[in-house]
Amino acid sequence: MAGPFSATRTVRFSDCDPAGIVFFPQYLVMLNGVVEEWFERALGLPYAPLIGVRRLGLPTVRLEVDFTAISRHGDRLAWEVAVERLGRSSLTLLHDVRGADPGAAATRLRARQVIVCTSLETHKAQALPEDIRAAVMGLPGA
Amino acid sequence: MAGPFSATRTVRFSDCDPAGIVFFPQYLVMLNGVVEEWFERALGLPYAPLIGVRRLGLPTVRLEVDFTAISRHGDRLAWEVAVERLGRSSLTLLHDVRGADPGAAATRLRARQVIVCTSLETHKAQALPEDIRAAVMGLPGA
Amino acid sequence: MAGPFSATRTVRFSDCDPAGIVFFPQYLVMLNGVVEEWFERALGLPYAPLIGVRRLGLPTVRLEVDFTAISRHGDRLAWEVAVERLGRSSLTLLHDVRGADPGAAATRLRARQVIVCTSLETHKAQALPEDIRAAVMGLPGA
Amino acid sequence: MAGPFSATRTVRFSDCDPAGIVFFPQYLVMLNGVVEEWFERALGLPYAPLIGVRRLGLPTVRLEVDFTAISRHGDRLAWEVAVERLGRSSLTLLHDVRGADPGAAATRLRARQVIVCTSLETHKAQALPEDIRAAVMGLPGA
Repeated sequence: MAGPFSATRTVRFSDCDPAGIVFFPQYLVMLNGVVEEWFERALGLPYAPLIGVRRLGLPTVRLEVDFTAISRHGDRLAWEVAVERLGRSSLTLLHDVRGADPGAAATRLRARQVIVCTSLETHKAQALPEDIRAAVMGLPGA
Repeated sequence: MAGPFSATRTVRFSDCDPAGIVFFPQYLVMLNGVVEEWFERALGLPYAPLIGVRRLGLPTVRLEVDFTAISRHGDRLAWEVAVERLGRSSLTLLHDVRGADPGAAATRLRARQVIVCTSLETHKAQALPEDIRAAVMGLPGA
Repeated sequence: MAGPFSATRTVRFSDCDPAGIVFFPQYLVMLNGVVEEWFERALGLPYAPLIGVRRLGLPTVRLEVDFTAISRHGDRLAWEVAVERLGRSSLTLLHDVRGADPGAAATRLRARQVIVCTSLETHKAQALPEDIRAAVMGLPGA
Repeated sequence: MAGPFSATRTVRFSDCDPAGIVFFPQYLVMLNGVVEEWFERALGLPYAPLIGVRRLGLPTVRLEVDFTAISRHGDRLAWEVAVERLGRSSLTLLHDVRGADPGAAATRLRARQVIVCTSLETHKAQALPEDIRAAVMGLPGA
């Protein structure tokens, strides 16, 4: 398993619900943005051209999430991403999200996300391109 | 297991991404809305007063989703909800979502969602209120 | 000005913020969905194929909104759409949104929205297609 | 008019629609987050405690937006905020958003946003608190 990548997020008003805590689908919008950042900063592959120019699809085909503690508006989050498995056309990422404010380091959520590489023309699975594969294999600890 | 409840949804422009298909967190926004509708129509308990008046929290604490086929803008979806398990403070729902247009009935996603009843004052788990428990136990097939 | 078209919406948990009221960008997500419904039901032109098959863009280029009263989770809304102006490539819609629950009919928001027809290949403005123009001109009161 | 405050944003996959460009309500989610950042960094008043602890409402009551050029997935945006007017209970902000990538500096949108200070208990307007007023009056150029 490759070593973790870290990103930080601040919980915004728009992420929260009438209970005053993060609405769970908003965590998944954040998760998708963190994966974009992981492609750019950890793999060195800007995400937007993969989709817009190379017409790769990178949909999530399986997701398991445990929401273990609440997050409130204004909380800072430390988001870690690690690679659990690199398949021919799939990539399994583990997300570990904790509080980043003093005294609030409890785990907020843990997720396992399986991404599959597809063609945006056919929406069928295809092998991950060599540059993505090589970048994942070159991660520290991989 | 209680018999399924059915709702329909139309995939809107706002649900879709640059790949032209539903962005997966938007399925979870839909899922949350379908659960509101399930409380209202299947259990006979309007959802908003549970939160706003009775100050119950009904957060999702675990979610497993398989996204098995894509949905496009304009697709109609048939969404089924069934109860897998009723615990003291938790409720496990199974979601089965298929296409509802002619010739497009493939399963789009299946999800298992664990909801826990909390107090919105403390965000701690508490027993499900008797009226929710009784309504779940009174569902057809329960 | 063409006569109004009516749609109804229920305010969902996902539309609301930590203040317990609709978060204003969510009104605009709703507005976009109501415009889709207006194309389908008032103009008789399903919206998704306009974008996905005919590759028309229908972006909003100007928006003015007055948010005049709050809406809460669970509120039912009566949404009216009227045509203010039909230009060569633009369409100006007026939205009037009131409460639909007994004793709660206050106006929630009024919006003026200017939509322009573009090509999705070039993102440049182009004349509205004849079928859209004819359908708008055929609206009751037009 | 107070001098502008600047923030930057990257357009994420979740911000974009099937036309491959930013879906306009997502600009308004961004706008709301930029206003949070403006409170924190320009006024020196963290936003979350205003809502969560002091129970102030800061809803948008009027919004005018011109969307003048499209933004695509991956674009970097330079977002400027300036104060147009400080009233007893209202604050009018001007937003000017341009591209921040080389050769792509076109204005993407301009917005005028009127925020009113309310009580979250009554949702009625009230005078802006003295610390907010003083911080706005102390902005450079105010």
